[in-house]
Amino acid sequence: MKINGKDYRTVWIKDGIVKMINQPLIPHKFEIVDLKNYIEVHDAIKTMIVRGAPAIGATAAYGVAQAVINFDGEDISKLKGQIKKASEKISHARPTAQDLFHGIKYVKSAVKSANSVEDARKKAKKAAKNYADESVLACKKIGEFGNNIIKQNDKILTHCNAGALATVDYGTALAPIRIAHYNKKKIFVFADETRPRSQGSRITAFELGQEGIDHAVIADNAAGYFMQKKEIDMVIVGADRVAVNGDVANKIGTYKLAVAAKENKIPFYVAIPLSTIDPESINGKQIPIEERSQEEVLYSYGWTDSGEFLRVRIAPEKSPSRNPAFDITPKKFVSGYITPEGIVNSEKLKYLIR
Amino acid sequence: MKINGKDYRTVWIKDGIVKMINQPLIPHKFEIVDLKNYIEVHDAIKTMIVRGAPAIGATAAYGVAQAVINFDGEDISKLKGQIKKASEKISHARPTAQDLFHGIKYVKSAVKSANSVEDARKKAKKAAKNYADESVLACKKIGEFGNNIIKQNDKILTHCNAGALATVDYGTALAPIRIAHYNKKKIFVFADETRPRSQGSRITAFELGQEGIDHAVIADNAAGYFMQKKEIDMVIVGADRVAVNGDVANKIGTYKLAVAAKENKIPFYVAIPLSTIDPESINGKQIPIEERSQEEVLYSYGWTDSGEFLRVRIAPEKSPSRNPAFDITPKKFVSGYITPEGIVNSEKLKYLIR
Repeated sequence: MKINGKDYRTVWIKDGIVKMINQPLIPHKFEIVDLKNYIEVHDAIKTMIVRGAPAIGATAAYGVAQAVINFDGEDISKLKGQIKKASEKISHARPTAQDLFHGIKYVKSAVKSANSVEDARKKAKKAAKNYADESVLACKKIGEFGNNIIKQNDKILTHCNAGALATVDYGTALAPIRIAHYNKKKIFVFADETRPRSQGSRITAFELGQEGIDHAVIADNAAGYFMQKKEIDMVIVGADRVAVNGDVANKIGTYKLAVAAKENKIPFYVAIPLSTIDPESINGKQIPIEERSQEEVLYSYGWTDSGEFLRVRIAPEKSPSRNPAFDITPKKFVSGYITPEGIVNSEKLKYLIR
Repeated sequence: MKINGKDYRTVWIKDGIVKMINQPLIPHKFEIVDLKNYIEVHDAIKTMIVRGAPAIGATAAYGVAQAVINFDGEDISKLKGQIKKASEKISHARPTAQDLFHGIKYVKSAVKSANSVEDARKKAKKAAKNYADESVLACKKIGEFGNNIIKQNDKILTHCNAGALATVDYGTALAPIRIAHYNKKKIFVFADETRPRSQGSRITAFELGQEGIDHAVIADNAAGYFMQKKEIDMVIVGADRVAVNGDVANKIGTYKLAVAAKENKIPFYVAIPLSTIDPESINGKQIPIEERSQEEVLYSYGWTDSGEFLRVRIAPEKSPSRNPAFDITPKKFVSGYITPEGIVNSEKLKYLIR
């Protein structure tokens, strides 16, 4: 992704330091965080310095690799103890994130056959790089397949942030948009604010602005209006989890958007890497929905005119809130799933399960 | 309405002073503003110390009446000049608000036949009181008709604030909810935050809390989730304008809500006084939609933990926004119109035009 004109990934490793973009500061400040060891990697995931399943997966892979690369000594059995400690710590950072376990496992498996600490260091380094590169390639493929359905002058609506910053690069929902832009298509993106955490106005708008992609932030309430006005040609969203039958768990508000898109005959696409398809969930009813803290709804977080980051209360002191983080969009509302293997319908989805 | 256990109206007159609840301070502070003359009345409407068509109408009526009541002298022709000046000033406060003109005209007509300044004072005072009382009565009737369709344990969703503070008392969408509560029905209200101006989380939640009505503030994005979960039995919203055919112009987001309600077979009601039906608008296409300032979307306004009211930026410095203030909900999504004359369908609506 382009930031201030330079190419970045969300997370990488250099000279034994895991480096990542500090996402809570976006869009106000652009800052790289240095993580010196697996405890700091754990903390960065836990405090959401990095978020988004693919980005978390790569961070975990780099975190385990770092524990190997920086291991002090040549005793391979002690190294194995160190790997175990690092893996366990990191795996507890966000216990429900599937990709976290994938990332850890990927590096651990690669190191298993090492016959010396030095060999393990090489293998760990290579495995973490491969994991991140594969993740980037998957997103790029999503972008290329998605680009095929984006026409000149299309106006595209997206919800939340399924961008480069939620992955290692390109993003999922934003990958087709990026590739279309790189291919010099003139496009326009509506970025839903995505209350309560405003990832759309904060992060998606930041990514689009940095790439020089024409866009406007809109209140989540306004999406229906622009659909009615025929100002939206297509909706592309990401997903947190997709059931085997094609039902989609994604950021709260996705469902209402999908219903409005169908009513207005606007194609509604879900862009996902294959790891998002959950073989354990037969349909959306089996996906549990987390209700998060009431504060997220009762406050809004942002930057004051003097640059201070703080929260403002937007509701009475005594009013409670309800705060479901995700909702389920039934497959009937989905026009297609944009995957690294191509754009498929819900019937074909099950053949792509990893 | 109850506030801090006492009965209030949104606006009233006492000893020649127009008094109103200072709405921009809600919910953080409860304060009554004193308006000494028609210039202050104009300013209060213009700066939205008072908002909501019926409340603005009554404020305008009180403002003109005040100019008569406080008139210094006994020369009736000079009084007429004063009335003209006050009416013109007040009518420019929010030039598109129909009710503003109604309120002014109502008092002016009543004073026309006065044969002395003293007689005019009496007539003006009585007319303004009548105007406000009629407005309250209309809302109360909306409440009583609406209450008939609210069952024990119903969970009701509302959008924006169509409450007592948008009228003189009771509200439109909130009137059925108030009357049901006064009748000891156990109900629960979901209050949509209503970005970008958050009137739902600020004002509706305040009114509900003050009345002791069980409620929760939700992000606008969450309404569909609760509909799917069968946690919402009915939606009641107000309207800014209703076309002769039944199409509804209301706060942005109403349309998407109505589409989701229909998809989930949840009744969707629009509560309105008769003045909201616009004989000039044959259908929704003829109602112009205002796009308001970009800042409303790019910032969120609220109170810091130390009680300071300020705005925080929730989007990149360079990102633009689009900010339509209203949308049109086609009549096919409306289960019924709750009016002071009863609950009617779109076919019957035209017979109620005033």
